[in-house]
Amino acid sequence: MLISSIYEPVQQGMAEMEERLKAAGKVDLPWMAEPLRYVLEGGGKRLRPALTLLAGRFYHYNPEQLIPMATAIELFHTATLVHDDAVDKSLVRRGRPTVNSLWGEGIAVLLGDYLFANSSELICSTGNLRVVRLFAQMLMNISSGQLRQFMSAYDWRQDREDYYQQISSKTASLFSTATEAGAILSEAPEEGVEALGTYGHGLGMAFQIVDDILDFIGEEEEMGKPVGSDLLQGTLTLPAILLMEQYPDDALLREIFEKRGDRAGMQRVIEMIRNSSIVQECYKIAADFCSRACHALEVLPEKDCRSSLLDLADYVIERRR
Amino acid sequence: MLISSIYEPVQQGMAEMEERLKAAGKVDLPWMAEPLRYVLEGGGKRLRPALTLLAGRFYHYNPEQLIPMATAIELFHTATLVHDDAVDKSLVRRGRPTVNSLWGEGIAVLLGDYLFANSSELICSTGNLRVVRLFAQMLMNISSGQLRQFMSAYDWRQDREDYYQQISSKTASLFSTATEAGAILSEAPEEGVEALGTYGHGLGMAFQIVDDILDFIGEEEEMGKPVGSDLLQGTLTLPAILLMEQYPDDALLREIFEKRGDRAGMQRVIEMIRNSSIVQECYKIAADFCSRACHALEVLPEKDCRSSLLDLADYVIERRR
Repeated sequence: MLISSIYEPVQQGMAEMEERLKAAGKVDLPWMAEPLRYVLEGGGKRLRPALTLLAGRFYHYNPEQLIPMATAIELFHTATLVHDDAVDKSLVRRGRPTVNSLWGEGIAVLLGDYLFANSSELICSTGNLRVVRLFAQMLMNISSGQLRQFMSAYDWRQDREDYYQQISSKTASLFSTATEAGAILSEAPEEGVEALGTYGHGLGMAFQIVDDILDFIGEEEEMGKPVGSDLLQGTLTLPAILLMEQYPDDALLREIFEKRGDRAGMQRVIEMIRNSSIVQECYKIAADFCSRACHALEVLPEKDCRSSLLDLADYVIERRR
Repeated sequence: MLISSIYEPVQQGMAEMEERLKAAGKVDLPWMAEPLRYVLEGGGKRLRPALTLLAGRFYHYNPEQLIPMATAIELFHTATLVHDDAVDKSLVRRGRPTVNSLWGEGIAVLLGDYLFANSSELICSTGNLRVVRLFAQMLMNISSGQLRQFMSAYDWRQDREDYYQQISSKTASLFSTATEAGAILSEAPEEGVEALGTYGHGLGMAFQIVDDILDFIGEEEEMGKPVGSDLLQGTLTLPAILLMEQYPDDALLREIFEKRGDRAGMQRVIEMIRNSSIVQECYKIAADFCSRACHALEVLPEKDCRSSLLDLADYVIERRR
């Protein structure tokens, strides 16, 4: 299914959000305009702001608050990508050179801070203290998750539970903030806020698991980054963890992590994962997160946005990049 | 005058703020505990949180909100120092190795983000939307100021106005947020909020000017960093701008900036500034900012905290580090 047809019910809102993003890039600081425009036009799928708008359509759709909120979510997401790339010294993202590779790490740090500030200001402009608080809690969650991931790089003693905790703070917390904020700003009843938060969290978990599968099975051209990037950077994801579960006595991954940059060993691990049932098993786990996410939606009114959220769950599993 | 006697009226609050800072360092993330404790116990003067508490004593002193606010201000200030040092690749701050020099730039970026998140959460805990907004606006102000400074490094075509604009966003905006937030949270009348904001802004301007003077005339041991650091990093501050005004035809600074790291030229500029009336002139400008700051306090009730703020203005001028 095309993402544009899933976004159909909030097409107008998405266009306005896009305008707001462009406006955020048009600042009175000439030296910033270029890197800002560059990251904001990076052409992501805009999944997170779409979640806010779709979640905001179940009750009192209120564009004056929902559009700034959706824009803030995308600005914040962009800020985390810019900082992540600077921290990991990544050179390519979505097939394009990163900010740090083009303008240096200093600009990447400061530009991320600026996007961060910009998103805080937009969220405050909703005038809703509850979403401001939700956002602040998510910040804590996401930033401790990033620190944890960074500090546990090249540590091969991580299991599924560590992994779930990791992707819950690093990815799912922003997805659930996106949906919950949409619900709160459209005056959803508590039951609706909770349902949409649960949906967002589950969808985020599935999204990250699929991302981590694609890192092993995707095509470099489609992904816009080299295959096996996570392992190369010392990040243990679900496919690698399942491989270790299958071969508990094999020191394969430990060796790769100990001899950093061991390309031959890497290639062997990639082949082992591709030629096993691990990929299928990971997809099964992602699909389970999605079913639970969709199940949560049952308490919500039957509206076009509900179908969109259900379709989005399929999209997240089926996507190729 | 000793800073501890200036803080006398808010001694109890300062001790509680210190406890809160320690608590922020005691996290459930073992890998973060060490760098966190390291930066939070860095032993600054805690000027900014003291401003919040002193400003909060004129009307309804309300520790439940003022102490989290003051703590947030200090956490945020620490976050900006950690990011600044990472961006500038500085090795020493206050006589101690920086986070980036000890744990690497990645940790510095993520630790700064974490402190930032922590301060946002504390500010939200006041439940006061007006201070949350004030904080968000200050974020925008400070982060565009940091970007502007970074992008204009080694640009010798900067005048006083550029400099004032620069230090207004980089330093004075946090000082005025500290005092204004104290006023708002203690339910000061609008006139009081404005007066305390004006005071904070003027004090911040003076503080930064004195910092920039000390960078030329201070003793390396007392300062905890090399003399002339700003110029070496390509930052044009007031003393250097006044030198260029005095010798408009002399290409001294331009040459230093063009031949980066020209230590002999640097030494000559330092001597020229030290042996001229420029230092005195800069002190005069800082003192003028302080007088205007103190003048703004006249509309406020005559209380012990008012004397403290007046003394603080003297302290800011007289300090040696």
